Amino acid sequence: MHILILGGGGFLGRRLAKELIQNGGLDQDEFGRLTLVDIAFAEDRLHDSRLEFIEADFSDQVTITNILQQQPDVIFHLAAIVSGEAEKNFQLGMKINFYASLQVLELCRKLAIHPRIVFASSCAVFGCDVSRIITDEVAPKPRSSYGTQKAMVELLMNDYSRRGFVDARSLRLPTIAIRPGKPNAATSSFVSSIIREPLRGKKASYPVPPETPCWILSPKHVIQNFIHAANIDEKLLGEDRVINLPGLTVSVSEMINSLEQIAGPEVTKLISYEPDAFLQSIVLTWPPYFETLRAKELGFVSDSSVEEIIRSYIAEEGIENIKKQH
Amino acid sequence: MHILILGGGGFLGRRLAKELIQNGGLDQDEFGRLTLVDIAFAEDRLHDSRLEFIEADFSDQVTITNILQQQPDVIFHLAAIVSGEAEKNFQLGMKINFYASLQVLELCRKLAIHPRIVFASSCAVFGCDVSRIITDEVAPKPRSSYGTQKAMVELLMNDYSRRGFVDARSLRLPTIAIRPGKPNAATSSFVSSIIREPLRGKKASYPVPPETPCWILSPKHVIQNFIHAANIDEKLLGEDRVINLPGLTVSVSEMINSLEQIAGPEVTKLISYEPDAFLQSIVLTWPPYFETLRAKELGFVSDSSVEEIIRSYIAEEGIENIKKQH
Repeated sequence: MHILILGGGGFLGRRLAKELIQNGGLDQDEFGRLTLVDIAFAEDRLHDSRLEFIEADFSDQVTITNILQQQPDVIFHLAAIVSGEAEKNFQLGMKINFYASLQVLELCRKLAIHPRIVFASSCAVFGCDVSRIITDEVAPKPRSSYGTQKAMVELLMNDYSRRGFVDARSLRLPTIAIRPGKPNAATSSFVSSIIREPLRGKKASYPVPPETPCWILSPKHVIQNFIHAANIDEKLLGEDRVINLPGLTVSVSEMINSLEQIAGPEVTKLISYEPDAFLQSIVLTWPPYFETLRAKELGFVSDSSVEEIIRSYIAEEGIENIKKQH
Repeated sequence: MHILILGGGGFLGRRLAKELIQNGGLDQDEFGRLTLVDIAFAEDRLHDSRLEFIEADFSDQVTITNILQQQPDVIFHLAAIVSGEAEKNFQLGMKINFYASLQVLELCRKLAIHPRIVFASSCAVFGCDVSRIITDEVAPKPRSSYGTQKAMVELLMNDYSRRGFVDARSLRLPTIAIRPGKPNAATSSFVSSIIREPLRGKKASYPVPPETPCWILSPKHVIQNFIHAANIDEKLLGEDRVINLPGLTVSVSEMINSLEQIAGPEVTKLISYEPDAFLQSIVLTWPPYFETLRAKELGFVSDSSVEEIIRSYIAEEGIENIKKQH
């Protein structure tokens, strides 16, 4: 079996590749080949004889045509321009988040064997009325270009699947916390920063009021959910291939309090509130309350507490010298 | 003011143009110019000094660029490949219903003055679970490529409006009944045929069981709603520019019974049930029950009874010799 990860150089793509190499996990078959595509890869690349790195822009027609002609069986499509950047650079967002995804689908439609696709969509397809509980039947009404582009690709993934051109499943990801690495242009970047940065002695700020609830999922569980999505029998999904992933609703102050319980006030005193109108205009339209019945019935998973998320992060990153003061 | 109707040669486009010429109706200003674009126009064209006919494919880039460079103030976008044809010819549907609409938006984005757009979307964006009542918050889950393409354009219309590139309003049209003329490739074509054809002494059939409920709106009221949509203050709409139009839920047998009341059994005996698997696969996924609170608050209108719809049609078409036998 040949697996392809678009966006394989990103944080989630790399972690997914690592998991597949170490533990396999796809039911269909053992994979003989894992191709990662991204515009850049970190210097400390993963090593495995089954791995292939393609440093290229997947939106380039020649590049993606050549890649898809190798008939991947499963495609994880994680490549995207993040929310903040897609809002500031409309054309770039349309190009990568929408047109390039449509191009992948069009090329897959013409393949002899139609691949299974796991598409990383986002809960940013929802907007406004944040008090509302989002069920599996609530309409996406994005309040960002990023959310719009993701919602359009979900519709395409459904129609192309219905017609038998591909076998897609679109996962609406909560905000992923805690992302390692550096802050990025995602408007939700602060959700990770306020935990990650103080833990390495650096300052961090949040742009929304501390009582703001967020809908989050850990990297560990999103990877587990990606692999689970690739394994679900098409018949169990029916014609609606869009799944609101389960997550955890937690406020900014709850995250900070939990960090203080774990790492002490010396760490959390590095965190401050710095209101940002641009970030608020997007983040405060994301609903934080979900009822993810379908995802749970299908066996998708989430975290039990923010404490679990922080402790996992500390363990995964090998962070030491945590001065627990309570 | 310059008004543009894309799809101006179709049944609704022509009727809208006639209404605008005869009664005006746009609050912004008297219009000095009305441009109709379509691939073909009927021989008996409307006559008015303000009218301009462009017989061309609006999906052609040069054509639409030239048309839009004339800076229309209001665009009624009614051009489409109908549902049955878009299902059978996937690429043609994508080209006209999706890409060409995106091209219109992209060109409008680059104009000095961003036009108001009234986009004819469709209740075909909804699919499955037909027992459910569709409120303004229910997610579109199309079960046809036509519905998918319409839903994608709605998302674009919203995002382009939010960003100030256009000022759009997308109306989700119920099945329009009774359409004059000939049966067409719309999967809902039978809803009109079963009234129109027997009234002129011709046979007609319906492809779904007689108890099947349909969600319908008369041509008269859809035209009134198009004009109303063009007049609504942007502030009243906010960021969600998609409106489920009001309509009437009526079963096939109720339509036939009403026709019999009006025109007698000599007419309705021309109607028969001829099951069609392809048409059922689409029509039976369209929800017939709606709660259109937002549309009603905004002042959109619908019909009071199927009898009113049939009697209006008979009057508009000047049909005589109705042998009322009851």
